Amino acid sequence: MLASKFHLNTLKEAPTEAEIASHQLMTRAGMIRKHAGGIYTYMPLGLKIMRKVEAIVREEMNNAGAIELLMPVVQPAELWIESGRWEEYGPELLRIKDRHQRDFVLQPTSEEVITDIARNEIHSYRQLPVNFYHIQTKFRDERRPRFGLMRGREFTMKDAYSFDRDEAGALASYDIMFNAYMRIFKRLGLTFRAVAADTGSIGGSRSHEFQVIAETGEDLIVYNPDSDYAANIELAEAPCLIAKREAPTQALQEVETPNANKCELVAQQLGVGLDKTVKSVVFVTTPEEGPAKVWLLMVRGDHEVNEIKVGKLPAFKNGFRLATEEEILEYFGSEPGYLGPLNTVKPVNIIVDTTVANMSDFICGANKAPYHITGINWGRDLPEPEVADLRNVIAGDPAIGEPGKLAIQRGIEVGHVFFLGDKYSSGLKATFLNENGKPETLQMGCYGIGISRITAAAIEQNHDEKGIIWPIAMAPFEVVICPVGWGKSETIRNEATALYETLKQNNIDVILDDRDARPGVMFSEWELIGVPIRVTIGDRGLKDGVIEVQERSKAEAVKVPVAEVNAYVLSLFENLKNTL
Amino acid sequence: MLASKFHLNTLKEAPTEAEIASHQLMTRAGMIRKHAGGIYTYMPLGLKIMRKVEAIVREEMNNAGAIELLMPVVQPAELWIESGRWEEYGPELLRIKDRHQRDFVLQPTSEEVITDIARNEIHSYRQLPVNFYHIQTKFRDERRPRFGLMRGREFTMKDAYSFDRDEAGALASYDIMFNAYMRIFKRLGLTFRAVAADTGSIGGSRSHEFQVIAETGEDLIVYNPDSDYAANIELAEAPCLIAKREAPTQALQEVETPNANKCELVAQQLGVGLDKTVKSVVFVTTPEEGPAKVWLLMVRGDHEVNEIKVGKLPAFKNGFRLATEEEILEYFGSEPGYLGPLNTVKPVNIIVDTTVANMSDFICGANKAPYHITGINWGRDLPEPEVADLRNVIAGDPAIGEPGKLAIQRGIEVGHVFFLGDKYSSGLKATFLNENGKPETLQMGCYGIGISRITAAAIEQNHDEKGIIWPIAMAPFEVVICPVGWGKSETIRNEATALYETLKQNNIDVILDDRDARPGVMFSEWELIGVPIRVTIGDRGLKDGVIEVQERSKAEAVKVPVAEVNAYVLSLFENLKNTL
Repeated sequence: MLASKFHLNTLKEAPTEAEIASHQLMTRAGMIRKHAGGIYTYMPLGLKIMRKVEAIVREEMNNAGAIELLMPVVQPAELWIESGRWEEYGPELLRIKDRHQRDFVLQPTSEEVITDIARNEIHSYRQLPVNFYHIQTKFRDERRPRFGLMRGREFTMKDAYSFDRDEAGALASYDIMFNAYMRIFKRLGLTFRAVAADTGSIGGSRSHEFQVIAETGEDLIVYNPDSDYAANIELAEAPCLIAKREAPTQALQEVETPNANKCELVAQQLGVGLDKTVKSVVFVTTPEEGPAKVWLLMVRGDHEVNEIKVGKLPAFKNGFRLATEEEILEYFGSEPGYLGPLNTVKPVNIIVDTTVANMSDFICGANKAPYHITGINWGRDLPEPEVADLRNVIAGDPAIGEPGKLAIQRGIEVGHVFFLGDKYSSGLKATFLNENGKPETLQMGCYGIGISRITAAAIEQNHDEKGIIWPIAMAPFEVVICPVGWGKSETIRNEATALYETLKQNNIDVILDDRDARPGVMFSEWELIGVPIRVTIGDRGLKDGVIEVQERSKAEAVKVPVAEVNAYVLSLFENLKNTL
Repeated sequence: MLASKFHLNTLKEAPTEAEIASHQLMTRAGMIRKHAGGIYTYMPLGLKIMRKVEAIVREEMNNAGAIELLMPVVQPAELWIESGRWEEYGPELLRIKDRHQRDFVLQPTSEEVITDIARNEIHSYRQLPVNFYHIQTKFRDERRPRFGLMRGREFTMKDAYSFDRDEAGALASYDIMFNAYMRIFKRLGLTFRAVAADTGSIGGSRSHEFQVIAETGEDLIVYNPDSDYAANIELAEAPCLIAKREAPTQALQEVETPNANKCELVAQQLGVGLDKTVKSVVFVTTPEEGPAKVWLLMVRGDHEVNEIKVGKLPAFKNGFRLATEEEILEYFGSEPGYLGPLNTVKPVNIIVDTTVANMSDFICGANKAPYHITGINWGRDLPEPEVADLRNVIAGDPAIGEPGKLAIQRGIEVGHVFFLGDKYSSGLKATFLNENGKPETLQMGCYGIGISRITAAAIEQNHDEKGIIWPIAMAPFEVVICPVGWGKSETIRNEATALYETLKQNNIDVILDDRDARPGVMFSEWELIGVPIRVTIGDRGLKDGVIEVQERSKAEAVKVPVAEVNAYVLSLFENLKNTL
């Protein structure tokens, strides 16, 4: 490609609303242009990147035996009503009406349509297993779209759906997809983790997220550097940090703690470790029938309550929320910040974290501001509590059942594999006939990859103050040739063109910058865009018989003798490809 | 591809609603599955075909210098309001609201968005010319979607938009696209015509449709078999069939013509040629200001009024309609079927077709049922009329300005190139700075190809009673290997697999039917699907040392010696590719 024949339009400044690097850099590099909140055009550079991701995803999906089809963007409401998601799905599901006032949705995913296809197309166990996928425009009407492609409304996703005769088959299909995803993200050249994930309301038994590691990630990943263990913090089991409860040594004592409405302040005022304090959080469960119940949940002062775990407590499964200040006053007689299990106004249900259950001589609020009580002990001052894993893992927690200490890093979810079981197939009555001619319900899995989000996540992971540093597999161009003095020197034009032709013949995606821009402008533009290999051909170098080759990820350029430049660039390219 | 690893599911019967061959055959062959009126899933076979069309379109667009990007499906209403199409576009434009009640549309085309991009991205004449395109999901909320992919609601279209500094540049861009389209449709292996087309309300000076020739086409194409001339009947200029008006020879005479309310019946009753009769059609124009006007338009009895041409008459440009029966009675004093220019109740404005203007001694209705008047002559009985080209060409009309007689055939519009001028760029104020730093308005062209419609049009053109006959460039598979007795004979499995591997290595898109179906079932399935080359490997042939090669388009198979079958199939494939 000649730069003069391509459309490049970089900007000096990012829009003020762009808060994260990928949004800023994709906009500045002219890869995306915004039309409305979360709705973008992929400009030619941006589309090239997305197409490269798509091609790798498609190849690995095909290699894994999945079959591509294309389901519609606009889907009839009937199927969504049948599956129950017409009601369940929040306002992210964009519901629309056609000219005849019939209801449709813009697809956020395609479980309903693929299950409808399966029940019409799959008749016999002989047709199983089968895995259908498509790469298609999705729409989720986010309340507050932001971060560019990271949380857009219209985006491109690969979604696959496997159909099997039984759970064992479905889990085998799951593993095939899991392995395909491992290959996909390796080939893309990204640092990532496959992370055990919460299965949410679907309640299947297996789910993994593929997380691109980046400081700006919204997800927290718990992992063990000494093992393969990795899990989303939402799911990661927290260890009990106290092996055995000590016997009480202190008597109960009410102490004044002015303005100490946080554990940190209490520990500081009382001159004790934060690990002697206990945090009280009040929830209200909203059962389908009967009155609401008030719950006191307790975690150690240095820990945080994990609401995903709370939601899995049997009593919380039908819904829960934080208590209001009125409810807290009614049950505890105190404002928040000074709450505790002793001397409540009305009886409350108590559940404590595994670590809290083994604490002794601990400190809680006195249910009377500004007082706390020290020397509290289970069994002596309070009955033995109900115990559950209620907290988030923190860095340094010991791993469970294996050596090592847990660490935490941030990630961006770019893929998700999910064992669905019969969630959709039973609702939509998608069955097949087994060997005995008896109908059985199809077992499903679903597997998503956020194609457009990957392009943003790659940038969050790979950029510097100059711009983007693309992994070679995703780069809009693999090599850029920058002639300094294109307009003036025939020698330079000839050298540049000869190298350009050689690289093209070797199937390298190369762009020759024939726009005759000033070197500084040209270099900073290509550094912003992030092409992995830049070749600079200038008079000064040629006088010395050399051409400069600069890797985007390296600080220094390499001077290569003119006669060797073809071979050098080709071998550098191969190296970059092979280190994936 | 092994058939056992692909998803094939052919049906014996087409749905009753499927009226045309492509809808019936694509459904029966398992290429599409319907979810709602005009909304389909492209099943794996169907998607393969569409992707092959896309690849050819993309390659030729890139070769022609167009640059691919990807504009969104969901587009903000603001741009459509700015261009005026929010109001102008009928209910085919699906207008939707997001969760915040903001207005959006599902794109039927992308003139607004691309013009918005251009006004932001194009600053200088140095960036021109440029041509952007995308291949993206479109939505048109057809009142009555039907004919499968031929008139769907959700479909895939390639739309390109060129930007130039002046009209000469825009017309040059137009010609580049015209030539690219010629290459695209040739490469697809379709019989087609580039046809001069009506420019509609846009009023640009140049427009061509690309029509795939097929009996089921909705468009009528006028062409001269002796030249390159071809035009949509909407546009094709009709010749005046009478070089010079003869002098009157008859006196006016009122004749009774019972029940003869059509020219054919009048000619029959009076024993004269249909070419002596004149048809009277009454229109009402609806000017923006002032009262409606009644018009009598006259064409020869064997001709039809062309309403597109009528709409271009100066007095008709602000809108027109057929007169109601009440209006006809009021102005003519007679029911329709007996109307004419003589003895009207109220004065009417008369415009006659060029041929009618040169008729003499002709016959019209008497404005009194059941009477007609014979022997009417211009100048003598009526003033000289206003003359215009009002009629459709009919087969056999002489070509205008060149030798030959016009013929008519039916076509399916699959592409359209259009010179837009400043229709969008002036409304959206898309300008660039010229050499003198002065802003000028961008000149545009737009260029569409209906990707999904092409797959249906190809079938309308290429099918027989057994199924589809794909041109090789669009075929879902280029070669199918049908082993007869796959399960029983190792020899057959080996022969089939060896040929399969050889063809794959030669980059032929081959499918091996390893499902061990009965030969009759297998053959009729592949004839329905329409794979161009079928290779049958069976015991009987192998005993005689031959393998059968059957072209889908030929009646007879060829028996090829086993040792020559690789070379034979490869050379047959090359021939089919090269005859494009």
